[in-house]
Amino acid sequence: MRKSTIKDVAARAQVSLKTVSRVINDETGVHARTRERVRKAIAELAYQPDPSARSLRSAQSYAIGLLYDNPNPYYVIAMQNGVLSVCRETGYGLQIHPCDATSPTLANEIVQLVANARLAGIVLAPPMSENQALVEILAAHGIRLVRIVSAAKDPQDGSACIYVDDRDAAYAITEHLIQLGHQRIGFLWGGKSHGSSWERYNGYADALTDYGIALDDALVVEGDYSFDDGFRGARKLLALAQRPTAIFGSNDEIAAGVLAAARAGGLNVPYDLSIAGFEDSPFSKQSWPALTTAKQATEDIGRLAARRLLADIREQALTVQANTGINPELVVRGSTAPPRPNS
Amino acid sequence: MRKSTIKDVAARAQVSLKTVSRVINDETGVHARTRERVRKAIAELAYQPDPSARSLRSAQSYAIGLLYDNPNPYYVIAMQNGVLSVCRETGYGLQIHPCDATSPTLANEIVQLVANARLAGIVLAPPMSENQALVEILAAHGIRLVRIVSAAKDPQDGSACIYVDDRDAAYAITEHLIQLGHQRIGFLWGGKSHGSSWERYNGYADALTDYGIALDDALVVEGDYSFDDGFRGARKLLALAQRPTAIFGSNDEIAAGVLAAARAGGLNVPYDLSIAGFEDSPFSKQSWPALTTAKQATEDIGRLAARRLLADIREQALTVQANTGINPELVVRGSTAPPRPNS
Repeated sequence: MRKSTIKDVAARAQVSLKTVSRVINDETGVHARTRERVRKAIAELAYQPDPSARSLRSAQSYAIGLLYDNPNPYYVIAMQNGVLSVCRETGYGLQIHPCDATSPTLANEIVQLVANARLAGIVLAPPMSENQALVEILAAHGIRLVRIVSAAKDPQDGSACIYVDDRDAAYAITEHLIQLGHQRIGFLWGGKSHGSSWERYNGYADALTDYGIALDDALVVEGDYSFDDGFRGARKLLALAQRPTAIFGSNDEIAAGVLAAARAGGLNVPYDLSIAGFEDSPFSKQSWPALTTAKQATEDIGRLAARRLLADIREQALTVQANTGINPELVVRGSTAPPRPNS
Repeated sequence: MRKSTIKDVAARAQVSLKTVSRVINDETGVHARTRERVRKAIAELAYQPDPSARSLRSAQSYAIGLLYDNPNPYYVIAMQNGVLSVCRETGYGLQIHPCDATSPTLANEIVQLVANARLAGIVLAPPMSENQALVEILAAHGIRLVRIVSAAKDPQDGSACIYVDDRDAAYAITEHLIQLGHQRIGFLWGGKSHGSSWERYNGYADALTDYGIALDDALVVEGDYSFDDGFRGARKLLALAQRPTAIFGSNDEIAAGVLAAARAGGLNVPYDLSIAGFEDSPFSKQSWPALTTAKQATEDIGRLAARRLLADIREQALTVQANTGINPELVVRGSTAPPRPNS
């Protein structure tokens, strides 16, 4: 088969060569419908643009970065799959960079990284995205970025972000447990460097308050977003003279640890103990019983963040537009049930 | 604090400026001990090499790629964490690229990708790494690569690889089940485009044969490396008039599906049914009971592959050296036990 040329694509899509070139180079000024027609022609003809022509044409960068500091493999995979799906559509590469959010030279490291790797921009995941000083230094160095933050509303602080309403979803989970009849509901924190941990705690506390249940510090345990901290925290709560009848772990990894601790203690979930997580990870669907949780839509968040970043890069937008919000939704599964009448 | 210079590093490490420069640019000709001393000085002084100086010095690329086609998030995360750990040591970036291994234009896509992203080389994960025709086309285009393949011995086929002895580990798992007293052992395949699926099946079949147990086709079910196929396959096996007393899933995702199917069927694992997986994923440690499996050391495999690739890139090695092998090891946990006497 003869190799297709840009002329073949133009003829098939009934547009000019310039238009095909614009679509290939992700430039603006092409109608969505026309763009779609050109892409279809490219796909049908299996046309491959000449990469050397594209990369020599300008010193533009064709890769973005994803920076994260998270021990949870599901979160990282879902986030990068979302970002990758947009990279694929637009022909950008994705460099991934796990960071140490507590490094005192973090800002400097990121500035060097973006320069070294010639990244066109970065998606900044929590907790780095919630470090205002860091974000300001990066912006001062002209680094284009989109942040993922935990907030009920657009923070409107001058930078592009996707904001996730963790508080509202944590409220819904706690309310679900209260409505099942639970009064003693344990809470296991995620890492305090993450804004989401605070928001989820606040959602828990707000729901208790609204339903007239006093906050009991003995039922609240600090820790990180990890299985081990979930296990340890649950052991502590289950050893109380008056143990909780339900435990809300701040993410599904923590809830998985609670499930293991409950089983190690011979408790039947959900009848002896209800357990809820947060994330809607594959584990939450595959565990027995499956976990009640909040669907966080991490892949969608990654997709929205990448779309926003690439739109900003391609349009060279100078002003910050309205940001996009995500509302995680309660998902009720088998790990929550009414408490036993005598408990 | 004054910003450290290359001279400060040289003074502290007691070496010449040229030596510091060599270490920074990952050039050969520096003793390991000296290299270590220079790295220590760089770290202690928080010295940051000038990236523009480095990138302008030559048109060299400072990123490598990881190409995979695998539905298993644990595998992907572990692999990229291994590759990333080496990238960090050497200052290279990592671009990740999920591929469709069945795409008819795959070779062309990869050639374009490497050129577009100016990748210095690629780590090719299964099943692409086991497609000999693909590997030959990439080599003909001068793409430097390291393959990860399933094989008991160095294939010595002219390309760099890390080979994993899946057959031996699958043999060990099957032998463990036989020694517990199982005679009817089900087997759930992984995807047939993966060499590892065939090797694991062969290890299973060899162990049965060696112990004088006839292969029973009714106990062998095809599928992919996924939870859903594990669930479906187990349902099929458990519906047999003479059901197996143990099931070996070709990876931990499959075994997780078997565990769910067993519970859905009211079976007590391990007493009613023993289950084994392959991978040593986080799930295998966190499930209840924890899964007997083979420790695949995916992160180590990623690390070895990246080390080999970067050594080849930096030394511009023209001949293929001896390859490195990995032997997954049997890990016995609570999901396997002797069959009930009456079964």
